[in-house]
Parts: sequence; C-alpha cells; structure tokens
Amino acid sequence: MVSSERSVSDLFHLYASAVRNRDAGALMSLYHGTVRVFDAWGVWSYEGGPAWRKVVEQWFESLGDETLVVRFDDSQVVSGEELASATAIVTYAAMTAEGAPLRSMQNRLTWLLARENGAWKIVHEHTSAPIGFDDMKAILERK
Amino acid sequence: MVSSERSVSDLFHLYASAVRNRDAGALMSLYHGTVRVFDAWGVWSYEGGPAWRKVVEQWFESLGDETLVVRFDDSQVVSGEELASATAIVTYAAMTAEGAPLRSMQNRLTWLLARENGAWKIVHEHTSAPIGFDDMKAILERK
Repeated sequence: MVSSERSVSDLFHLYASAVRNRDAGALMSLYHGTVRVFDAWGVWSYEGGPAWRKVVEQWFESLGDETLVVRFDDSQVVSGEELASATAIVTYAAMTAEGAPLRSMQNRLTWLLARENGAWKIVHEHTSAPIGFDDMKAILERK
Repeated sequence: MVSSERSVSDLFHLYASAVRNRDAGALMSLYHGTVRVFDAWGVWSYEGGPAWRKVVEQWFESLGDETLVVRFDDSQVVSGEELASATAIVTYAAMTAEGAPLRSMQNRLTWLLARENGAWKIVHEHTSAPIGFDDMKAILERK
C-alpha cells in the first residue's frame, strides 16, 4: 500500500467547498464519468456522470439561499497505487444566508476512488442512513 | 488495472454459500480483521471483525430453520493490484426448510477488498436501502 492519504483527504475539502458554493461543475469534477452512485434517497442507483449531475443540480437548486456546511468525521482512507477508498460519517448542516443554523442530517459515506491523470476521481459513491428496527425509518442522526 | 474479476466474483459465491449454510466461521473468513461495516440495520458502524461476528452470529441464530438464498444482480467489479471493489444489488430470499418462499428483501452492497496472502478480504462493507422521500421509510424492494 502506498501512503497517499493526503491527496485522498483533499477530496473531503474539495467536496465540502463545492457543496458550500453550490457549484455543480466543481462537484462533478470530483467524479469519474462512469460513476455508480448508491444515494441515500429514493433511487437504487445512478449510473454515470450525466445521471448523477442532474441530481446534484436539483439538490443545489432546492437549497435556495441556504448554505450547506459539510463535515466528515471518523474518516478512514485506504490507498493503493490505482485505487483508494474513503469512508466517513458525513454531516450536512443547513444554515440561512446569515449563518443561523436551520437543520442537520448525517449519512454514512463510502467512496471508491481511481487515479485518472494523477488525480483521484470518485468511481463509486454510497451514502445511507441505518434503518430503525422498529419503524423501518431512516435514522438520520448518530447519537 | 489488473483483470482479476474472477477471483473477486468468487466472493459472491462464497458469501452466498456461507449464508445458506448459516456458517459464521466460513462467512467471517471472507472479512479482514480490521473490517469496517456500515450495515443497513440500526447501527451506524461496526469496527473490526469481533464486533461484526457478533452481528453475524445473531443473524444466523434468528433464522431458525429458515434457509436464506442470496442473489447478486447488476454487479460491477473494479480491481487493482492491492485493492478491489465490488458493488451489486443483493436479494436475500428466506425459505422454509422445505424450500417454500417466505419473504425477500433487497439491499445495495459495496465491498472494498484488500489482498491478504493472495486472497481478497473484505476490509469495508456498506449495505443499505434507499430512503423514501415521503415517509422516510426504507425501500426494501427494487421495482
């Protein structure tokens, strides 16, 4: 295994920055064109960059004037020469344009990364929340 | 990238066989000792083989006389020298000891695999179901 943790960790910052700026182009530049996304919400799988870009654009449009602050906790990075992986607990905290907190939500995140022209690209993303045993509802906060 | 798809695909068969036989030892032999599991149900994360083994043992005990048939659909494998990944839609179909169908459930599955002494071991597993937008409930069947 090669120690390239720093460059994978850069992705966390680039992802958070793109979401904060609601910049779909910057966010999509982190993904490989063939990305497979298992998103937490509603749909089993998105196959390929164009399908995922539509979701990202709708997500950013839905935010209106809100700012979304993304934080990654308990991250683990595993790196090889050609492939790497990152896992973490992600917190999405929505704030008003004035910076007042509105609400927040957490997900488990898995990224599979492949090296393309020297940069790590996300070839697979899996986000989810655990399912409550009693009511089958998503648990969106880690206590 | 190295073409080692066959050996990764073997894991699908070994996993299904271990679950069908309710053989916790055989199933746990597929996991690396440091595995991080983001399981679909109830708990955000299991860290390490011993924590995950407890869940597996409880799962198999809960089955009683039922047989669980596991099927992987739409699988994608990405392989490097040291790391590989597999993603798929998994169907868990419970049957009576006589082979009559009882119920079934689907999950999205992500495996991150690392090579250990020539064999692929699961260093990270992430299973989930998408969350319904309206009722926040897990969608456990892909239509």
